[in-house]
Amino acid sequence: MATKENPAGSPLESLNMQAVLSMRSSGYYSQRTAGAKHAIDSTISLLRDALTSLPESGVLRFADFGAADGGTSAALWAEIVATVRSQGDTRPIEVLYTDLPSNDFSTLFKTMQGMEGNLSDAYQVNYGNVFVHGCGTGFHRQLMASDSLCLGFSATAMHYVSEKPCEIEGHVHMVGANQVERDMFAQRAADDWEKILLARCAELKKGSRFIVLNFGIDDQGQYLGNTGGHSMFDKFTEHWRMLQKTGTITEKEFKRATFSQHYRTVEEFRAPFDDTQSLVSQAGLRLKSIRTQLTRCPYEHAYRDANGAISRKEFAASLIPTMRSWSETVFSSALVDREQQEAQAIVDQFYQCYEDEIAAAPDGHAMDYIHAIMEIEKT
Amino acid sequence: MATKENPAGSPLESLNMQAVLSMRSSGYYSQRTAGAKHAIDSTISLLRDALTSLPESGVLRFADFGAADGGTSAALWAEIVATVRSQGDTRPIEVLYTDLPSNDFSTLFKTMQGMEGNLSDAYQVNYGNVFVHGCGTGFHRQLMASDSLCLGFSATAMHYVSEKPCEIEGHVHMVGANQVERDMFAQRAADDWEKILLARCAELKKGSRFIVLNFGIDDQGQYLGNTGGHSMFDKFTEHWRMLQKTGTITEKEFKRATFSQHYRTVEEFRAPFDDTQSLVSQAGLRLKSIRTQLTRCPYEHAYRDANGAISRKEFAASLIPTMRSWSETVFSSALVDREQQEAQAIVDQFYQCYEDEIAAAPDGHAMDYIHAIMEIEKT
Repeated sequence: MATKENPAGSPLESLNMQAVLSMRSSGYYSQRTAGAKHAIDSTISLLRDALTSLPESGVLRFADFGAADGGTSAALWAEIVATVRSQGDTRPIEVLYTDLPSNDFSTLFKTMQGMEGNLSDAYQVNYGNVFVHGCGTGFHRQLMASDSLCLGFSATAMHYVSEKPCEIEGHVHMVGANQVERDMFAQRAADDWEKILLARCAELKKGSRFIVLNFGIDDQGQYLGNTGGHSMFDKFTEHWRMLQKTGTITEKEFKRATFSQHYRTVEEFRAPFDDTQSLVSQAGLRLKSIRTQLTRCPYEHAYRDANGAISRKEFAASLIPTMRSWSETVFSSALVDREQQEAQAIVDQFYQCYEDEIAAAPDGHAMDYIHAIMEIEKT
Repeated sequence: MATKENPAGSPLESLNMQAVLSMRSSGYYSQRTAGAKHAIDSTISLLRDALTSLPESGVLRFADFGAADGGTSAALWAEIVATVRSQGDTRPIEVLYTDLPSNDFSTLFKTMQGMEGNLSDAYQVNYGNVFVHGCGTGFHRQLMASDSLCLGFSATAMHYVSEKPCEIEGHVHMVGANQVERDMFAQRAADDWEKILLARCAELKKGSRFIVLNFGIDDQGQYLGNTGGHSMFDKFTEHWRMLQKTGTITEKEFKRATFSQHYRTVEEFRAPFDDTQSLVSQAGLRLKSIRTQLTRCPYEHAYRDANGAISRKEFAASLIPTMRSWSETVFSSALVDREQQEAQAIVDQFYQCYEDEIAAAPDGHAMDYIHAIMEIEKT
């Protein structure tokens, strides 16, 4: 269900929790939810703050960019709608969910109508005068009429670049690229970031805000799956390289496994705002705040807290699926010249090797999140 | 790809034309297109007329209700956008496509971006400042903010009732129901029609229009597949009954095959407008015009014109798929208690019997369309 634009939005979405839950009590579930909720909770205060300065507008148009099936942010939007209504604001609310055209819009629309998921999140039916729309165009372009958006939001989606500038020769991700490759990714990401911001700026009404929660690199150089222990992307690279060394995949296939992602540093996120002459600044966008945040891997967290009640093998079997859910497409796409069954077997073997390594020595394996959280305002 | 809301929107969509084309020249294709284009062409003049009186609005919001994958109306919307721009109107245009949540919104979004279908229809990329949105909520409810819609359109979608009021005992469709059943369908359809109109009235800006092209019953009692020769729905009933008589299906399964449709008469379409005290009239909706139109079955048309170059068997094999594409779900749903493979075999047998009958004596078999075409205005 997760799509390219929001592959790792929620570990709860991506892991088959039912399988885990069948072994565990419901407390175990809540424990795992806590980590994922943390990142989102911290944006709720920013969104509430944005609601206090909603612009003059007959219609309150909100947008969720790169929303996938909407599951991750459904509770958040339900809370926003509740807040607006509790303030006595009865204006019509239109929420526009955007993602790539291949996105699962059906699940999204069903969720908001209470046909799937938690009924408490189905704000379209729980409140009157609220309308849910979708847009299947990528967020690098303007997606609605100028001067129509009262609040924009995006969670864990905009680390995807519009196009891979090159394949990375010796690694699978830009975090391990050589300088030339890294510069190419940085340039593409800078161009994309400018496009994203100019598009949002055109859409936003004056005084409205755009709250972004995005994967990035913090001041200590930490990023997704690389927060002091083993680096997840280095591990992906090691196991993928091993398949090439043993002749299972070709050198070409090794190189083709390149994530279309760029994790921006805080400086990269800030750049168009710090430069008062940039198109973004000139258009009137202002960065109100930026901070980075580590959200602990809920699987590793649960394993630590369980004090041995979860085995090493169980931990490994819980961690790999959440990594696999958003990364698998990169490795299977690299094997595009092969029969599907053969490619699938290779990909299975790849993740199994990683899982075996974790099960043998779990210490230092985790998929902690590093987010940059920004509050952007159109002045 | 067709969904419940727009199952027979276009015979070109529903038939596997490639299979037919592989046997035929491209002229044969155009010939078959002619019939389906006729119904749509006749609404273009109404839509052009509606464009001459667009309301004051910063944004031109248009909507296509029950649009399925958008293929049937794509050329129409491309022409509308072209007309607006040719008049020097540079306002932003937002087109909202609505259908049930199970609809194939991905194909719709891809088509408008030129990733699928005819590039000439991809008006989102062929014109600037044009935005395509989707809404996965049924059209019996209000689907956008009040007073925001500048032009509404719906083709061959609103004959579906919101819920079946009963199973029809001796037939598969309300056109063959007994009086008690027919009254129940008529009542449900009247309630639905009022809901549909009140929802559109709330959405429309003053002076804006809603153009509807809908299946109905004309003054001679004609309707889809019943225009003088054999009645398609009677044939469905005969062949379905035969399966029950021979013990292939049960009486319960026979009854469960009831189309959730009501073909309204012109009087039924007019009723809420003719009554000046109705909620619809009081809300300010006015029926500017209504007429019925017969669109000849393109398959029967081609067969006649071919003067023997198309065999009876080929004709039958071309006609059944277009009927099957939108009706099959009714018969397979009636067999819900059976294994899927068994149900499929029964449904295959059902359509094969009908096809054999047509192949043996094609005269009088056709799926002519009867549409009621309405021009509705918010005053």
